Amino acid sequence: MSQPNPLQLSPLQIRQQCRSGAFSRNTSGLAPGFVQANMAIIPAAYAADFLQFCHFNPKPCPLLGMAATPGAIDMPQLAANLDIRSDLPRYRLFRHGEFTEEVTDLGAVWRDDLVTFLIGCSFSFEEALLADGLEIRNITEQKNVPMYKTNIPCQSAGVFSSNMVVSMRPMQPAAAIRAIQICSRFPQVHGAPVHFGDPARIGIQNINQPDYGDAVSIKEGEVPVFWACGVTPQLAIAQAKLDFCISHAPGHMLITDLPNSKLAVL
Amino acid sequence: MSQPNPLQLSPLQIRQQCRSGAFSRNTSGLAPGFVQANMAIIPAAYAADFLQFCHFNPKPCPLLGMAATPGAIDMPQLAANLDIRSDLPRYRLFRHGEFTEEVTDLGAVWRDDLVTFLIGCSFSFEEALLADGLEIRNITEQKNVPMYKTNIPCQSAGVFSSNMVVSMRPMQPAAAIRAIQICSRFPQVHGAPVHFGDPARIGIQNINQPDYGDAVSIKEGEVPVFWACGVTPQLAIAQAKLDFCISHAPGHMLITDLPNSKLAVL
Repeated sequence: MSQPNPLQLSPLQIRQQCRSGAFSRNTSGLAPGFVQANMAIIPAAYAADFLQFCHFNPKPCPLLGMAATPGAIDMPQLAANLDIRSDLPRYRLFRHGEFTEEVTDLGAVWRDDLVTFLIGCSFSFEEALLADGLEIRNITEQKNVPMYKTNIPCQSAGVFSSNMVVSMRPMQPAAAIRAIQICSRFPQVHGAPVHFGDPARIGIQNINQPDYGDAVSIKEGEVPVFWACGVTPQLAIAQAKLDFCISHAPGHMLITDLPNSKLAVL
Repeated sequence: MSQPNPLQLSPLQIRQQCRSGAFSRNTSGLAPGFVQANMAIIPAAYAADFLQFCHFNPKPCPLLGMAATPGAIDMPQLAANLDIRSDLPRYRLFRHGEFTEEVTDLGAVWRDDLVTFLIGCSFSFEEALLADGLEIRNITEQKNVPMYKTNIPCQSAGVFSSNMVVSMRPMQPAAAIRAIQICSRFPQVHGAPVHFGDPARIGIQNINQPDYGDAVSIKEGEVPVFWACGVTPQLAIAQAKLDFCISHAPGHMLITDLPNSKLAVL
């Protein structure tokens, strides 16, 4: 019997395929219309600090959900029957701030003091932009969105501090204005852009050399438009050099049961 | 007995002072919180075309009100006890597309076939921007906002055709993003900007030489932000070379009883 086409699976079915080991690839394009989330799992000793960091910096760290207690593996308001230890396709483990390995299951490393955080992802607003007919260059060119470290400081909280990381999508000015309108409706997935135009104004020296992701082409008359990016909390966690923490592998997100449309505040 | 301070008058009181001849200056800063309107009065033969022109081009020509019948001098939904022939401080008369004279009362030139149109004005959104703490350069520098003819075509309707005229306010990118959010709530007063950045992209050769109004300073890191402007319908009317038409004198607006806040769609 052939495997089902992942593009036709529901969020729950995809999570179950992750759990069984049948699916371990990136989630781009899967379960269209449903929120995909960045994930960070950190020891309870730092959870209050991290929650405060998210609260202080809602544009790069828009918190979609937080486990009710340390060790909890479910998040019923976002995903039915969730086991956070197995229901993402791939995870990355970090020790003392350094990436150590990529795994498809957390069973062997789970601890009762680990607290799970889910953070909004640009996939949700990209879907809204595409639905309005706007072109998204990284999608057109089948690349990862280019991301850059900036000189914009986040407000620190406890052990967590970082400058903001931004993602960039080039647009004609009229399209950028429309994108600002659309993204303003979605504060839980980074909201409106934080900057457009001259990259040097926010400390980006070379727009063609992103710190993460891939460079994309910028056409005549287009301006780079910059959104706060969910890599920011990952950078803050890495810089805190926690003894242990876990994130999703880039592009290998948790697919929730929440429709993107439910994130619209208007 | 001394004259009352115009800054403390209600919209109705200002209109009555205009009617009596006691007030004939510009209306900038008067009746804060109330909508001020651009006015165009044209012969009924062209009214259907002009209404269609406004319908086709809502950003430069956001129609706040139209007289119920040719010759009507009132507009009860916008201003109590209105006599459009006398309740603005100053009017301009045009014959065959040429400005001929400025008057403070239309009694001598009124005709039963004249149709009044009221069009939204940037004063309303400037108030919303100021209330949010944004700086508006033309206000800071006590100048008229700079306005420019562009190469952006309006959709023609009957005898009316024109390129769009835009107003410009320089802002830092983050302030421009906020201004786009705020102005998106006010589609009846030109709504979100139509362009930002490179003036040449919309046919403006020299940002320091506006076609109307005054140049303002643009500071390091600021970008020019361009809004559709209510001078556009005036230009379309002038280019149609109607045998006769009337507008308000620049800056000498009709002050309505409508609070600016009522224009917010959200």
